[in-house]
Amino acid sequence: MRLLEERILKDGIVKEGGVLKVDSFLNHQMDIELFNEMGKEFKRLFSDAPINKILTIEASGIGIACVVAQYFHVPVVFAKKAQSINIDGDVYQTKIQSFTHKRVYDVIVSRKYLSPEDHVLIIDDFLANGCALEGLVDLVHSSGATVEGIGIAVEKGFQHGGDLIRSKGLRLESLAIIDRFENGTVVFKEQ
Amino acid sequence: MRLLEERILKDGIVKEGGVLKVDSFLNHQMDIELFNEMGKEFKRLFSDAPINKILTIEASGIGIACVVAQYFHVPVVFAKKAQSINIDGDVYQTKIQSFTHKRVYDVIVSRKYLSPEDHVLIIDDFLANGCALEGLVDLVHSSGATVEGIGIAVEKGFQHGGDLIRSKGLRLESLAIIDRFENGTVVFKEQ
Repeated sequence: MRLLEERILKDGIVKEGGVLKVDSFLNHQMDIELFNEMGKEFKRLFSDAPINKILTIEASGIGIACVVAQYFHVPVVFAKKAQSINIDGDVYQTKIQSFTHKRVYDVIVSRKYLSPEDHVLIIDDFLANGCALEGLVDLVHSSGATVEGIGIAVEKGFQHGGDLIRSKGLRLESLAIIDRFENGTVVFKEQ
Repeated sequence: MRLLEERILKDGIVKEGGVLKVDSFLNHQMDIELFNEMGKEFKRLFSDAPINKILTIEASGIGIACVVAQYFHVPVVFAKKAQSINIDGDVYQTKIQSFTHKRVYDVIVSRKYLSPEDHVLIIDDFLANGCALEGLVDLVHSSGATVEGIGIAVEKGFQHGGDLIRSKGLRLESLAIIDRFENGTVVFKEQ
């Protein structure tokens, strides 16, 4: 998606160690008009899929998912990273390793909000090693629901999460795929 | 807001100990069409305020804030509950006590996204004792920005967060205010 790539080139900051910071428009401060354009693009890409629910994970996936959901006219469910006393015990549960935070999270979704009748689009902001995404796919499969597709804003193509997910036969669409960093700037994979 | 009150009566679940669960439409599964109606109402209520930014806190405030932001045409910033290695050290910081999770969180916002020129609308899903809201107000004041108003979906009027915030001269609008629970159902405060 040209608009997102241009925005990453303009406002993304490449740090040492292959870290791309996009927190001025994507995952700390959020540009809602950009999210709307992303929503239109995901709708175009998944227009043939019978999606009736969007699943994401707290925290930075939620904003994108809610704006995108407007183009599908479906509710959003977000997976939670720790058990709260306000959640019923009756949950689907998985574990997700976070390299960013150097820990393993228990991640849960209430059984009330995923069922075998659901056709799910998974939305998240970033895909790197794929751990979060594998956890979300695992939650959907636990419920008997169908993963219709996965929509990602920014995929780090030089890590292997995308390959892993695609090798499982899952339909994955990333709006911008980073091929490599060169002289401190981002080079995208041609799509 | 009649639509939200009706939805709480229809789908909210009153648990023992004064806990109202609205996770089927507000803070786990999210009804985006309802959020759009809430956005229109907040815009009506704050139409005279020169708002250029919305501030919320992860996780359950983010979805509402992003949908509401579309009616103000402004970006959303969400305060984060723990230091991530992907956040610059240059942050505003406060502490928020969570009674739900029985712990104290460090809450941060990057200095890049709040400044003295900002006129901020704070959005959150719930207001009970007001600890989270006081923390967000503190972050805005630390930056020199102005709190133009606070928009809450559901206020527990029988707890004292709302009184506390209003007593500070802050402009607080809650779309539904729970006066009390009676025989397992919710009684709203007349607005």
